[in-house]
Amino acid sequence: MPEHTFDDFEAGRVYALGSKVVTEDEIVAFARQFDPQPFHLDPEAAKDSVFGGLIASGWHTGAMWMRLYVDSLLGGASGQGSSGIEELRWLAPVRPGDTLSGRLIVLEVTSSESHPDRGTIRIRGEMVNQDGVTVMTMVSRGRFARRQN
Amino acid sequence: MPEHTFDDFEAGRVYALGSKVVTEDEIVAFARQFDPQPFHLDPEAAKDSVFGGLIASGWHTGAMWMRLYVDSLLGGASGQGSSGIEELRWLAPVRPGDTLSGRLIVLEVTSSESHPDRGTIRIRGEMVNQDGVTVMTMVSRGRFARRQN
Repeated sequence: MPEHTFDDFEAGRVYALGSKVVTEDEIVAFARQFDPQPFHLDPEAAKDSVFGGLIASGWHTGAMWMRLYVDSLLGGASGQGSSGIEELRWLAPVRPGDTLSGRLIVLEVTSSESHPDRGTIRIRGEMVNQDGVTVMTMVSRGRFARRQN
Repeated sequence: MPEHTFDDFEAGRVYALGSKVVTEDEIVAFARQFDPQPFHLDPEAAKDSVFGGLIASGWHTGAMWMRLYVDSLLGGASGQGSSGIEELRWLAPVRPGDTLSGRLIVLEVTSSESHPDRGTIRIRGEMVNQDGVTVMTMVSRGRFARRQN
């Protein structure tokens, strides 16, 4: 994986972040630890919920997107964390067996005036399922070191 | 835990969601699964990072807040999921041994015109550490069933 620094990002660039199959076991394990609502935790109880069956916690979907991002780009990059998310939408349920594909669009790159060795990128993140349905979108920021020459 | 429905929420009400000690093992386990950046994954590598030591993934902090919310309120509530987050800020690092306390402030309650059996609450969520430092804030929405009389 190439080492990505701040200087390798440019506004408008789109990255495919790879994909991931979501299993029922993973949905339930995440729910048990972090979001034990019946429709995330229990396939039987979920049938009677408004979702009609088990769905992944939205935090789980976000975390799976993050993993695709780290594996595709951030792992070999000079990332220095994030100050937060501007907005995040959970648009459609994520169900067991779904294959989720991550995308990242660079919206804006801003070099730091106070710290010339770093910069911030503003990105749109997307997660799309096997039917082409976008299940999650978000806009967030990430800080990166600049290339050291 | 009392059963919370939409009708039990009112704007301005503040809920203490309890607290949680964050261990190094938990930080590393979450990072291994979802956010394997060096400063989340490896205490030694993290010393050389801009954070000066291991810190929790922001997604992990969000998920821990969610767990406090479910345990305190949502578990016995009539929650029907969330359409998303309006904004989320990671304001300070979360480190091994930190005790995080969750808070929820109800900002707005809106009954549904199209579905008289439900409504939406807009909330501010906060996570505060043992030194009184707010490490995360967010504004999000949740849908709830109304009380059935």
